[in-house]
Amino acid sequence: MAAITKVSPLAPAAFPDLPVIEGVSFSAIAAGVRYQGRTDVMLALCAPGTAIAGTFTKSATRSAPVLDCQAKLGGASDDGAAILVNSGNSNAFTGRNGQEATDAIVAATAAATGIPAARVFTASTGVIGEPLPHDRITAKLSDLNENLSPGAIADAARAIMTTDTYPKGAATICEIDGKTIKIAGFAKGSGMIAPDMATMLVYIFTDAQVDQAALQAVTTKVCDATFNCITVDSDTSTSDSLMVAATGTSGVDATGNAAFEAALHSVMLDLAHQVVRDGEGATKFVEIEVTGAVDDASAKTHGLSIANSPLVKTAIAGEDPNWGRVVMAVGKSGAPADRDTLSIWFGDILVAENGWVSPDYAEADAAEHMKSEHIRIRVDCGMGHGASTVWTCDLTHGYIEINADYRS
Amino acid sequence: MAAITKVSPLAPAAFPDLPVIEGVSFSAIAAGVRYQGRTDVMLALCAPGTAIAGTFTKSATRSAPVLDCQAKLGGASDDGAAILVNSGNSNAFTGRNGQEATDAIVAATAAATGIPAARVFTASTGVIGEPLPHDRITAKLSDLNENLSPGAIADAARAIMTTDTYPKGAATICEIDGKTIKIAGFAKGSGMIAPDMATMLVYIFTDAQVDQAALQAVTTKVCDATFNCITVDSDTSTSDSLMVAATGTSGVDATGNAAFEAALHSVMLDLAHQVVRDGEGATKFVEIEVTGAVDDASAKTHGLSIANSPLVKTAIAGEDPNWGRVVMAVGKSGAPADRDTLSIWFGDILVAENGWVSPDYAEADAAEHMKSEHIRIRVDCGMGHGASTVWTCDLTHGYIEINADYRS
Repeated sequence: MAAITKVSPLAPAAFPDLPVIEGVSFSAIAAGVRYQGRTDVMLALCAPGTAIAGTFTKSATRSAPVLDCQAKLGGASDDGAAILVNSGNSNAFTGRNGQEATDAIVAATAAATGIPAARVFTASTGVIGEPLPHDRITAKLSDLNENLSPGAIADAARAIMTTDTYPKGAATICEIDGKTIKIAGFAKGSGMIAPDMATMLVYIFTDAQVDQAALQAVTTKVCDATFNCITVDSDTSTSDSLMVAATGTSGVDATGNAAFEAALHSVMLDLAHQVVRDGEGATKFVEIEVTGAVDDASAKTHGLSIANSPLVKTAIAGEDPNWGRVVMAVGKSGAPADRDTLSIWFGDILVAENGWVSPDYAEADAAEHMKSEHIRIRVDCGMGHGASTVWTCDLTHGYIEINADYRS
Repeated sequence: MAAITKVSPLAPAAFPDLPVIEGVSFSAIAAGVRYQGRTDVMLALCAPGTAIAGTFTKSATRSAPVLDCQAKLGGASDDGAAILVNSGNSNAFTGRNGQEATDAIVAATAAATGIPAARVFTASTGVIGEPLPHDRITAKLSDLNENLSPGAIADAARAIMTTDTYPKGAATICEIDGKTIKIAGFAKGSGMIAPDMATMLVYIFTDAQVDQAALQAVTTKVCDATFNCITVDSDTSTSDSLMVAATGTSGVDATGNAAFEAALHSVMLDLAHQVVRDGEGATKFVEIEVTGAVDDASAKTHGLSIANSPLVKTAIAGEDPNWGRVVMAVGKSGAPADRDTLSIWFGDILVAENGWVSPDYAEADAAEHMKSEHIRIRVDCGMGHGASTVWTCDLTHGYIEINADYRS
């Protein structure tokens, strides 16, 4: 396994101070699943009454823990919930052993914590196709359970990292009916990283009280506008998982509440941006806004086509305001477009309009914007009112180095 | 414009000797559209009675010459036909000027050759968004017309190159009812090349006699199995054009003939492979065969998902038999797949079966295959009888150099 130790130039200055979410406690431990000298398993324990929602990879070759989590979602429960995650081995494409390993970890977590197996959710991230040495994990469950602490969320965030160059956390508070609720979460991921497949895992906790069906609905909606709007290299993991746990310990009912949705959105968007900023080889954070499409779905299709285009991404790496490649990416996306009503901006500079370069455009102006670390591209389709914003990073020699030059 | 002068390591040893196709003559000239010291315009003149078929980019932002050609296809004609192509400027995203430039070139070609404007087909390839200096082209049309020669097909192939590192030609003969017909063609393209958008252009000529509707049908069918099964970087040009001209001068009716279809397939496949072999930065030619899918379309979807995956392409560049990335690409493609019935071969080596690594697999064997220049990946979905083969190249530092390190 290649050691990618240099922190992304787009990383935040520090891991944020995350608030304690009453009703949740965390622990992390070094189980030696694959890595040496670092933690690689985390346990989160949620109080009785906690509602759990989640979204998962759409891959047709999903891993065993993903299938297990999906089967368990949905029911409300007065029982608590446990989340157990290991890094170093994804338990993906491991045949029948995959489910057996997941079952063993679930059973051991249930035994150690007293949480019913139906409320134990697991995830695994790391190399693919190798049997997960689940006994190394189950052997540590008593220790994990004994060391649970409400303040250990940052330890949990570090334990699930694979080739991430920094841990990713975010939090916010929001007011509902004059009372305060808190949301805190963490994520791992930086694209589908070498040496094998990596995974995006996200865990978010709140002390709000939210009906399970409503929590699932708002989680799906916000995920669609945040994590489902980012891309590093267009490759989708077999293990991507996002879970939201609402403990209700604040006593504040946030079911269907708009302020809660906005707060959840801000935390998920922050974490999603941090994943992009840790994109393999990334040197630029890129925001692509598409407006004037026939509908929002078409705008998102155009945006992701631009964000996934190797020619657009390499042009950004080269600080080249190559709007022709943006036109190309819109044209190939499959969503409706009219060449002659397209307008394109780089930063605040109108580059092209009415199917041709803008008469006022001077390449030197756009080239200046391309030098910045935060690139903004806007495309107006001139056809309707559909809009979407997506985020990505550039495609550099660093990506090739990480994914081709080192062998797993 | 960056000078990419090093010939691809995957290039054929030499340009093939192409046979004269009776009823077609060619000329090429240096018009100075953009390049200096090389030819950049070619004219092909086809005899009266020639049937013309074509397929074009599906981009929603197609260039003016593409739209013009598409509008002219379909009608049978006793008139001849002319094909006029320039390199250096794609006349794409050039607003109203685009159609005006195309009209001017069509009119001048018609005047010089005596072919009706409705039978003059043009194409342009090169930089995007700059007005095409069409007067430089129209000024040369008399010279082009006076220098037409049946033997000048190689000159025509060279005149349409942009950042191709070598000209691409292919030919075959086939027997129909004891008589011989010939097919010869040429292509340009090596992905969507820097410094701007490049284009795949293909022109094929035959002395067979083929009804126009039948020629269009067989052209579309064979294109779908050849050029539509290759990818360099998943980016689609606004100008891609393929045309087949059947002069009928052999007197051999090939309408609906299976041997003709097979011969056309062999020429188009040869040219398609040559485009892949000139893929930007390519060091490996990659064949991906998918079998056992629920239908052929699903097999092609899986194949192109593998071929377009940056993680698969970088693994090949790194000579890493990373079958986990192949599983990932199958899983994300959107076509039906069952993780537990997948089998994967690298070369002749069975790597994975029944949802896990094969018990007989030794990575050293697959690693040996990965060192070769021609990589073969086979995936059997274990679900049905759908099959498809696609071709691509690897993703290397060379691609980043060509597309990011040099400015247009």
